[in-house]
Amino acid sequence: MKMQNEERIWPIPGGTITDVQGIRASGIYCGLKKEKRDLALLCSDTEAVAAGVFTRNLVQAAPVVLCRERIGHPVRAIVVNSGNANACTGKEGMRHAREMAQLAGEALGVDPSRVLVCSTGVIGQQLPMEKVRTGVARAAAALTAGREGGRTAAEAILTTDTVPKQAAYRLTLPGGSFHLAGMAKGSGMIAPHMATMLAFLVTDAQISRALLEAYFREAVDGSFNLITVDGDTSTNDSAIILANGASGVEIAAGELSGELFREALQRVCLDLAGAIVRDGEGTTKVIALTIKGAPDREAARVLAMQVLNSSLVKTAFYGEDANWGRLLSALGTGGVHFDPSRVDIYLGPVQVAAAGVGLCFDEDAARAVLSRKEVPVVVDLRAGEAELTAWGSDLSHEYVSINSSYRS
Amino acid sequence: MKMQNEERIWPIPGGTITDVQGIRASGIYCGLKKEKRDLALLCSDTEAVAAGVFTRNLVQAAPVVLCRERIGHPVRAIVVNSGNANACTGKEGMRHAREMAQLAGEALGVDPSRVLVCSTGVIGQQLPMEKVRTGVARAAAALTAGREGGRTAAEAILTTDTVPKQAAYRLTLPGGSFHLAGMAKGSGMIAPHMATMLAFLVTDAQISRALLEAYFREAVDGSFNLITVDGDTSTNDSAIILANGASGVEIAAGELSGELFREALQRVCLDLAGAIVRDGEGTTKVIALTIKGAPDREAARVLAMQVLNSSLVKTAFYGEDANWGRLLSALGTGGVHFDPSRVDIYLGPVQVAAAGVGLCFDEDAARAVLSRKEVPVVVDLRAGEAELTAWGSDLSHEYVSINSSYRS
Repeated sequence: MKMQNEERIWPIPGGTITDVQGIRASGIYCGLKKEKRDLALLCSDTEAVAAGVFTRNLVQAAPVVLCRERIGHPVRAIVVNSGNANACTGKEGMRHAREMAQLAGEALGVDPSRVLVCSTGVIGQQLPMEKVRTGVARAAAALTAGREGGRTAAEAILTTDTVPKQAAYRLTLPGGSFHLAGMAKGSGMIAPHMATMLAFLVTDAQISRALLEAYFREAVDGSFNLITVDGDTSTNDSAIILANGASGVEIAAGELSGELFREALQRVCLDLAGAIVRDGEGTTKVIALTIKGAPDREAARVLAMQVLNSSLVKTAFYGEDANWGRLLSALGTGGVHFDPSRVDIYLGPVQVAAAGVGLCFDEDAARAVLSRKEVPVVVDLRAGEAELTAWGSDLSHEYVSINSSYRS
Repeated sequence: MKMQNEERIWPIPGGTITDVQGIRASGIYCGLKKEKRDLALLCSDTEAVAAGVFTRNLVQAAPVVLCRERIGHPVRAIVVNSGNANACTGKEGMRHAREMAQLAGEALGVDPSRVLVCSTGVIGQQLPMEKVRTGVARAAAALTAGREGGRTAAEAILTTDTVPKQAAYRLTLPGGSFHLAGMAKGSGMIAPHMATMLAFLVTDAQISRALLEAYFREAVDGSFNLITVDGDTSTNDSAIILANGASGVEIAAGELSGELFREALQRVCLDLAGAIVRDGEGTTKVIALTIKGAPDREAARVLAMQVLNSSLVKTAFYGEDANWGRLLSALGTGGVHFDPSRVDIYLGPVQVAAAGVGLCFDEDAARAVLSRKEVPVVVDLRAGEAELTAWGSDLSHEYVSINSSYRS
């Protein structure tokens, strides 16, 4: 993505969601996880316009069902628990999700139907509601507009993540300034083509729901939907944005304000998506795969995801092995047609294959590229004009350790 | 599959492809691998009817292209090398594949156009033809109709496999008896929906090419196409069967001979497919997943493969963790529609979910099932009559070790 308004987009060092006007947050521990914050509350002082993108998994967690019902209406708060996904929990799970909204609404003195609910963690177990009840009350009491609020909330939504994921920007327009910030969680069950993981964005800009939704879908499509850790699509994926208008700055399509908002939104989504892949379960390096010369963007996306979800490709990168043949083989396994005998492949600056055939490349130079934390790979199909970059994780021993003992 | 002719199908203990009349074989070392046999030759004393099923990967190795050209004609021999896939090797690779057939034909004194070629190993490197040239000559000199021939050939086609994979049966009909035997290799890059890996079957029955092909496609579909190790489809997958008629026993559709042949063929394919999964790279246990109550067989197949290719499901089985929620989540990620709120899930005899919701099951009983070498899992969609069993591997630390250092 090319940045057009670089001089109007200011990253806020150490910024968090509570840098946005009219946003308070908190994150506390209530016993759903082992000794780590596990319940977050995010509250807008006034009603906010909301948009959301949710998992395309046929199996949808109770809170996802609830959010889908409510996302078209104004929103005042979001309550989030980690440690339990409240998925595959049937009618009892739906009752629990509704009760979480009810509890948060009562504690905050807002209409419970204005509260969204998100959950993340193990699938198929009922939420221990007595813990949630005391948790929500304590989280409401801890709400603050200070950075501590955003920081603790960003911690409380994590599961196997090792670092919180946050991004915050101040945007300046001739008529005033506004903020856009977000937090996300996600480390496993991260897969393409939906709103992956949990992401919460807030802005104090004033924007219509239709425009917010259009911009948000575009931004999610160009960020969260282009990352993968393990190819598994969660039952709980949700990305939600709230716009409360507290800055008084109006966003209009086709004007500078709209372009700036759109660009900043893409930037925040890319920041958070990048943070998720870097913190993917067991990830030792990120593969930044650019598919060039594709017939169209969707073909490029499908091919990129095939490669980034191949266990053989992922283990080769983990081993820093320039085994590009696995990459070309992975390209060929899907439904997308291309001519293998035209494909060029590059590891960083090192071309390893030309017209589908291996070159005698400099193994040391290739290994130097492969030893980077983020390995740039370019596949040129030489079949069209479309180009796209997607990001994936390698597959390490640590990944297996994490996931073979998840419930225990 | 129900066996109808149990009393006519006799497994041959220690049997190999050279138990089939008119079949000679050999396997030798020529320097393509490190100190292990890497070149096999299989020869029928007379022209054999041949059928084959090949990879559906868009990227096809040179020997696959050659086999596709030749499979419609009678076949006298197959030459196979391991250690190098001769894939992504362009026109030079095609020349090498043709030369391998030429060399084998000359050494055996048969028309080189009657020779098939298969390769397996690393992708993207040219075959060291000087080694292959001396190798083919030595393999031809070593050909024997004794068991040693079949045994060494079965060794010479292996790559990361830890055990040879063979099956041999004697089939008795009122008018005489014939043999059906096969060998296979495959441990990684094993994925659904094509003829996975290399498999070579031979029979001394007399059968038309059309009938052989029909029976073979059906058998491959119900065996090799229902296994997965890593979800990656190789560039070199080939399953080939030769029928040389040496027993004089004629196989006819719709008669006892046809039914017996069909059944035995399915049995050999299942034997070899099972052996491949059990020996999958890093496999510690096999997941035998039965999808019941599916709307149709294809839906059942797609769903089974989604589950068996999920890294999260595979690591949970490796950890012997009854994390069935990942299994239900994996079912929901594909394009197949079903109602999650009807799904029942069983680990062996232990029902862990009913109507899409978790049960309070006996964790010890579940763990006992999960500790088996082959874990039976049943998913009942309660949406139709179709039923199918597929087999997959778990995902272990050893898998990562093997594949992060494959080329080195």
